[in-house]
Amino acid sequence: MSLHPDIAPLVFLIGTWNGEGRGEYPTIADFTYGEEIKIAAPPNKPFLTYTQRTWRTGDHPEAGAPLHTETGYFRAAGPDRAEAVIAMPTGVVEVHAGKIGGTSVRLETTTVAATPTAKEVRSVERSLVVDGEELRYELWMAAVGQANQIHLTATLRRQGG
Amino acid sequence: MSLHPDIAPLVFLIGTWNGEGRGEYPTIADFTYGEEIKIAAPPNKPFLTYTQRTWRTGDHPEAGAPLHTETGYFRAAGPDRAEAVIAMPTGVVEVHAGKIGGTSVRLETTTVAATPTAKEVRSVERSLVVDGEELRYELWMAAVGQANQIHLTATLRRQGG
Repeated sequence: MSLHPDIAPLVFLIGTWNGEGRGEYPTIADFTYGEEIKIAAPPNKPFLTYTQRTWRTGDHPEAGAPLHTETGYFRAAGPDRAEAVIAMPTGVVEVHAGKIGGTSVRLETTTVAATPTAKEVRSVERSLVVDGEELRYELWMAAVGQANQIHLTATLRRQGG
Repeated sequence: MSLHPDIAPLVFLIGTWNGEGRGEYPTIADFTYGEEIKIAAPPNKPFLTYTQRTWRTGDHPEAGAPLHTETGYFRAAGPDRAEAVIAMPTGVVEVHAGKIGGTSVRLETTTVAATPTAKEVRSVERSLVVDGEELRYELWMAAVGQANQIHLTATLRRQGG
């Protein structure tokens, strides 16, 4: 594989990651989910591709059924600055800028925009921390009239790792 | 396949489409490209997934090399209204709203947003017309200080069609 030099600061994110997460928000019941994240580096391109999908877990009657999915790209802007663009089938897009530190990245939305029928999302913060073969993330969100607060926490393991 | 009823107005877009396109803009030399568009309906979900990739064609020394790619989702908001969200590895996101008419859809950006290192894009219009086994699209763009004008035109055929 020919890794584009611009993407080197984010190479620790590359992999197929599987695991479980937990969701909470004032407007909904707590829930758990299974998740797969795929982050890949196309040869000689200055970005990473990002796709994600989740499914129901536990003793829910629809266990295994798809929940959320999203797709987008990560970019590095120098050794310690990250950017991301993410599109969601709910009609929301996120534009992120943030910091890379070691094998972690912390992103905040500079813009959240949505189609006419989408729910209101005002801001999203995402942190991703890679620790050996483990990826942990948190997602904080200000949406549907609520203050910025934790929405998702997950711990995934690198497939084949 | 269990098609979600909300997405029925856009079912004509579903397929894997292959063909060639032509690019032009005042700031660049005209170019041609090969393209594959995949539009799919996940079972029982009210959206279509959209991914696209292009590559160099003709007698260019790097013929076959990847050019652009983008990813996102289409949604219908009733029988004649469409929405789309698209993320690009250049750090740009597009949020579209528009009209469905027969087997065509005409979208205009309600928001274009970008990461700090991305080029300036002010607006994008996309039309997609399906005519039997053929999909034609145009993309108009106002970017990098230029007025809204044609940027891309392509004619694709449904794979297996």
